[in-house]
Amino acid sequence: MTQAIRSSPKPFTPDDYANRMARVVDDAAEAGLDGLIVTPGPDLVWLTGYRPTAITERLTMLVLTAREMPTMLVPALERPDAAAAAGAPGLRLVDWADGSDPYQVASGLLRFDGRYGVSDSTWSAHLLGLQKALPRTGYSSLSECLPMLRAVKDDSEIARLTAAGAAADATFGEIVNVRFAGRHEYEVAADLARLLRDFGHEQVDFTVVGSGPNGANPHHEADDRVIEKGDTVVLDFGGLMYGYGSDTTRTVAVGEPDAEVRAVHEVVRQAQQAAFEAVAPGVPCEEIDRVARTIITDAGYGGQFIHRTGHGIGVTTHEPPYIVDGVRQPLKPGMCFSIEPGIYLPGRFGVRIEDIVTVTQESGLRLNNTPRDLHVVE
Amino acid sequence: MTQAIRSSPKPFTPDDYANRMARVVDDAAEAGLDGLIVTPGPDLVWLTGYRPTAITERLTMLVLTAREMPTMLVPALERPDAAAAAGAPGLRLVDWADGSDPYQVASGLLRFDGRYGVSDSTWSAHLLGLQKALPRTGYSSLSECLPMLRAVKDDSEIARLTAAGAAADATFGEIVNVRFAGRHEYEVAADLARLLRDFGHEQVDFTVVGSGPNGANPHHEADDRVIEKGDTVVLDFGGLMYGYGSDTTRTVAVGEPDAEVRAVHEVVRQAQQAAFEAVAPGVPCEEIDRVARTIITDAGYGGQFIHRTGHGIGVTTHEPPYIVDGVRQPLKPGMCFSIEPGIYLPGRFGVRIEDIVTVTQESGLRLNNTPRDLHVVE
Repeated sequence: MTQAIRSSPKPFTPDDYANRMARVVDDAAEAGLDGLIVTPGPDLVWLTGYRPTAITERLTMLVLTAREMPTMLVPALERPDAAAAAGAPGLRLVDWADGSDPYQVASGLLRFDGRYGVSDSTWSAHLLGLQKALPRTGYSSLSECLPMLRAVKDDSEIARLTAAGAAADATFGEIVNVRFAGRHEYEVAADLARLLRDFGHEQVDFTVVGSGPNGANPHHEADDRVIEKGDTVVLDFGGLMYGYGSDTTRTVAVGEPDAEVRAVHEVVRQAQQAAFEAVAPGVPCEEIDRVARTIITDAGYGGQFIHRTGHGIGVTTHEPPYIVDGVRQPLKPGMCFSIEPGIYLPGRFGVRIEDIVTVTQESGLRLNNTPRDLHVVE
Repeated sequence: MTQAIRSSPKPFTPDDYANRMARVVDDAAEAGLDGLIVTPGPDLVWLTGYRPTAITERLTMLVLTAREMPTMLVPALERPDAAAAAGAPGLRLVDWADGSDPYQVASGLLRFDGRYGVSDSTWSAHLLGLQKALPRTGYSSLSECLPMLRAVKDDSEIARLTAAGAAADATFGEIVNVRFAGRHEYEVAADLARLLRDFGHEQVDFTVVGSGPNGANPHHEADDRVIEKGDTVVLDFGGLMYGYGSDTTRTVAVGEPDAEVRAVHEVVRQAQQAAFEAVAPGVPCEEIDRVARTIITDAGYGGQFIHRTGHGIGVTTHEPPYIVDGVRQPLKPGMCFSIEPGIYLPGRFGVRIEDIVTVTQESGLRLNNTPRDLHVVE
């Protein structure tokens, strides 16, 4: 286990949350918005530390505007939980009771003709309720109007992502010692989950074990296929540690791989390396995708690289910045995202290599550091 | 373990899913809608059996209309998973690739001036994307335009809910034998989770252990409070079994309870019993709430019953029919919901009693059958 994951980071303070809320209100004003509407999910966790037991049909809604103190509407019976959130000292709580109309109460917190950014995962039932109660208000999704809201991480966030990355690396360091041949994919997946927890993750989100033809489906998880000698196996795993995500992929060969596997793996490795080397402040997100895609296309596998090159990571494992054609925003110091090119040959095998990378003042810095060459396992 | 949970139910067939989709299209037409838009979540599980690995920013969307075959738009890289869903034989799959605009593709599946019901938990980012691509379409949330979409369960669904209820009962039957006094709430919660799994649950969703003053917060989960002799403890637990939910609550006393605890418990028990006895086809949902609330109010605790009387249950543990003032729809045979009145005395203790009930041709039938009197534990 590395030094990075030995000591717990200091918990975020009420001031940390108040500062985030203040920064976001400024960003919203700059984007021409009257404010933000945030319901339970990663945006709310990041802004207030509040994570209700469940996300349900009962409306919980944080309203951030320049004119008023941050105000969170909560179901009356969840008020004690909300009041206990780490960011609650910076919030005014307003509640509504079962049997009353939460959208009427909510409309009192909004301008009748205001324009608001809404967290992406807000239930459409809630948005439709607001649109009905206040027909002249306007809404945009945060990923559209403020896509980079949480994209730039501060040092204490990067420390958490670094710890999560080191734990994922430690997991890979151990998993190559388990037996692959003759075992079910789900057994190796269980090993990955156990190791992630052993190395400090409080939550395991995915443990992909894509052996042989299953590796050619990028979103295959793990099933009852028995891994065989001669297979390649895509291992893509991650979760949350100190509230921040890990996500890394390595492809291993069970026994000596043939020349084609080696060649495909080398193309992916070069694409991943070149994309990483292209990372620097000011470079458009889509450029990183272009660099990886060009190498794979030039090698003749463009049609087999069927997903974007990467996604941001923070309190959730998929968030802006997305590293894909069309995202022209420039990289900034503190952004953290995956670089994960892959080649998928249907019915045969797949190869993917993924590291989390953060943008420094000059370049990129990998938060995953296990070898990226083709590892042979048993 | 009861008979009900010994044998697994037959899996739902492609025909089962096709029938549900057909029924829903009829319901939609009757409600004046051109069709339904359903994204990942309980509605999609119920209609197609499809449950993507994660609900993410990538649009997955089922469109049901009278004119076309059921069509599901999926991210290209999730197509193999979607094609493997139990209901997939009744679906036409259309995919979109990273870097393209899914809302443009989606708009080709909708009428430019159509009116659609949208699953409640659809991300607002997706709804806003559709509203932008097709400015003249109209949308209502399913809980508003077709609230009873999944509310009436068929026999095979009720069999699953019955099995889940019996497993929850078996869990309660065991938990009263564990030690309470001197242990942390979270230890008893872990016992509940283990028992639910032992008795066949594939997923545990909540294990509330609200001892002493914690019991006065209806949404308290379980924390590090040490349970003491003299406490009352609210135990509210459930999860999924064969894909269908359980949810039951009993309040126990640690050692001999005092007269006030006994009196409050008896009021709640009578309210729960009277509400259950009021269940019959044709009775408005809100009437069940009124019956329970009247008894508690007459006993002087109306202000301490701070939530609705119940919620429907099926592939998720909170769904219509909601048993609350304002819901005038009549109960129908096959509906399944909780009856869970409670009294909460802040800083002191809480009492709640909850059973799942299904509506038969004449009356109500409990799916939880453990004793509802005050149980004394050690």
